[in-house]
Amino acid sequence: MPKISNRGENAPASPIRKLVPFAEAAKKRGVTVYHLNIGQPDILTPEIGMKAVREADIKVLEYSHSAGIESYRRKLADFYGTYGIQLTHNDIIVTNGGSEALMFAMMTCMDHGDELIVPEPFYANYNGFAESLGIVIKTITAKIETGFALPPVSEFEKVISDKTKGILICHPGNPTGYLYSKEELLALGEIVKKHNLFLFSDEVYRDFIYDGCEHTSVLSLPGLDENTIMIDSVSKRYSACGARIGVLVTKNKEVYAAAMKFAQARLSPSTLGQILSEALCETPKSYFDEVKKEYDKRRMIVVNRLKAMQGVVTPTPNGAFYVMIQLPIDDSDKFCQWLLESFEHNKQTLMMAPGTGFYATDGLGKQEARLAYVLNEKDLHAAMDCLEQALKVYPGRTVNATADSKVN
Amino acid sequence: MPKISNRGENAPASPIRKLVPFAEAAKKRGVTVYHLNIGQPDILTPEIGMKAVREADIKVLEYSHSAGIESYRRKLADFYGTYGIQLTHNDIIVTNGGSEALMFAMMTCMDHGDELIVPEPFYANYNGFAESLGIVIKTITAKIETGFALPPVSEFEKVISDKTKGILICHPGNPTGYLYSKEELLALGEIVKKHNLFLFSDEVYRDFIYDGCEHTSVLSLPGLDENTIMIDSVSKRYSACGARIGVLVTKNKEVYAAAMKFAQARLSPSTLGQILSEALCETPKSYFDEVKKEYDKRRMIVVNRLKAMQGVVTPTPNGAFYVMIQLPIDDSDKFCQWLLESFEHNKQTLMMAPGTGFYATDGLGKQEARLAYVLNEKDLHAAMDCLEQALKVYPGRTVNATADSKVN
Repeated sequence: MPKISNRGENAPASPIRKLVPFAEAAKKRGVTVYHLNIGQPDILTPEIGMKAVREADIKVLEYSHSAGIESYRRKLADFYGTYGIQLTHNDIIVTNGGSEALMFAMMTCMDHGDELIVPEPFYANYNGFAESLGIVIKTITAKIETGFALPPVSEFEKVISDKTKGILICHPGNPTGYLYSKEELLALGEIVKKHNLFLFSDEVYRDFIYDGCEHTSVLSLPGLDENTIMIDSVSKRYSACGARIGVLVTKNKEVYAAAMKFAQARLSPSTLGQILSEALCETPKSYFDEVKKEYDKRRMIVVNRLKAMQGVVTPTPNGAFYVMIQLPIDDSDKFCQWLLESFEHNKQTLMMAPGTGFYATDGLGKQEARLAYVLNEKDLHAAMDCLEQALKVYPGRTVNATADSKVN
Repeated sequence: MPKISNRGENAPASPIRKLVPFAEAAKKRGVTVYHLNIGQPDILTPEIGMKAVREADIKVLEYSHSAGIESYRRKLADFYGTYGIQLTHNDIIVTNGGSEALMFAMMTCMDHGDELIVPEPFYANYNGFAESLGIVIKTITAKIETGFALPPVSEFEKVISDKTKGILICHPGNPTGYLYSKEELLALGEIVKKHNLFLFSDEVYRDFIYDGCEHTSVLSLPGLDENTIMIDSVSKRYSACGARIGVLVTKNKEVYAAAMKFAQARLSPSTLGQILSEALCETPKSYFDEVKKEYDKRRMIVVNRLKAMQGVVTPTPNGAFYVMIQLPIDDSDKFCQWLLESFEHNKQTLMMAPGTGFYATDGLGKQEARLAYVLNEKDLHAAMDCLEQALKVYPGRTVNATADSKVN
């Protein structure tokens, strides 16, 4: 039997999805499972999107332009313009989700064996993309004690080698919800300038910013047009994950031209997804205001409930819809499995994403877990009730020294 | 300025699309351009597909399962069952077009530096996928004199090295239209068994078979379950290229599990595309009969017109909707550009894909071009009129020795 590839063997299984069989078994036992483990929002997709799809006069469902439908790209340029990002449609490649945009960015800028610096904890699927392309992820560790702020520049300098080709940030962060400040971004800008690196910024949660904060895109940073590549998607913005429509945006013409060759090889992104996404550009601002208000409410429910739990460390995230917490437990993989396998509270339990999957450094994240606050108020409270009870009876409970030092 | 990757630099620009600016210029001059250069059919997409999309009750456009919607995979298993291919839905991963399926197959089975044998001429985009993954394409040359039949086994043995991990065929072939016989497939089966290789089969044109011939999938070959991976797509089957829905199918459980890790990393294929494609499974057999009849008519128009042109060598293809021909010209890239730039016949001209883009071996394909017979009868005749006239006046016309030896 022929052997599969090393990359196929080494690619990590999704840390978020590997608990699925245990959740299914719990449901079969009649236990309600609150899914705080995945970023599938329950928010309605604006009706204007499906309306456009329904009304589209499609006799032949054709390929689109490999860079995406031009009228859609023009509307996207206008959309980013409202955030002060000056673009033309020729800076944009429409992709099969943010995932493909990131793949294109990586393959366009980095070769096999090249190194990419990523602050950890980071979105676990970056591992799969890097592994498939032979790209080596080097991490510097953001600490829960600082709310997962950007580690100091000196930490980056320590891991930069002659193999380093880029830095990848998720902004605001999945799993941390951390929103980089303009100062932090300018510091990153200086590093990439000094070492001649690319700065990849995954900004798929750019529309979910709280506490009156503002999102600064890497594309707005002065003097960095040649270094910056932005990844975005309609998945979270319009609660349209199934559209599989993302974008790669760069003002670097060489990067754009090379990425287009890979885009042409796969012909085009989904035509129906683009028709939907183009119509969604007309979504009124009031939609975002309402959605943000709703998430903000959920965020504060989760954060306040967590902060009230003894031994739990909960930074208050300023963006996205995740919170990464530290728990008074021996091992988050064990704990998350135990929640599904051996625990129930009023015939209910919750599913979280164990922290270990978001770290590349062995041993990190063992006391951490990611929660996605994508459920309604009532369900979130019920899930928090479960967690609170679970921590009281979990056999692997430990004393959390960090929590005791009152970082909360 | 940071440097793009070698793979980004080396990835070939699409040979099919690079003439686009010349076509656009011709149109601006008021010249009608018949597009025989791309495989975008004009056949109507069965209405049942868009009907399902229009009627879908979608409040939140969610991610689907990473392997694709289960009910769709079950229908696909049934569909292949009608062709005698025994599958379950757990042998199928739904992908963003056949392109992504091929990417997954390559990254799952092959590492950076591994060699893939592909009979040339081959679908030009294989180069882009291989380049992005660091896979080295080794070719053996199929000859127009044999109608692009599978080269003898001895030719494969000559290029197999300890780096060889697989053989990739397009069956029936793009650009050749060649349909491999069962005997040829069995011979391939013996090679892959003997050398412990994977056999990747791109069967996206499997529904377009003429002259009473039958298509044998590699999945039907006895004793090869561990070696074979089939790539397919709804793009051509239902004239639904814009759906971007393909599949990777394999009974090798190790390959399936590893490919699923890459599928999970990119979350899911297009939900709307899957709703459309699932409904298209109900397309009546009469649709295929009619479409095949239409293509067959077009095929014979093109083949007969070409065979009547002096110095043109035209194998009669048994599958797909392409024909790869040899022309009495100095250079097909020059000729195809000249057709758009300097030639017109009754204010009309045609666009073809130069042969060179389909060969990896330098110098091959210079007298060849690929024609896609995806236009209606009248337009095809008009395009053939143009080609006939063009060959009479093209300054780079040569004497074609092959044609003179009456291979036609």
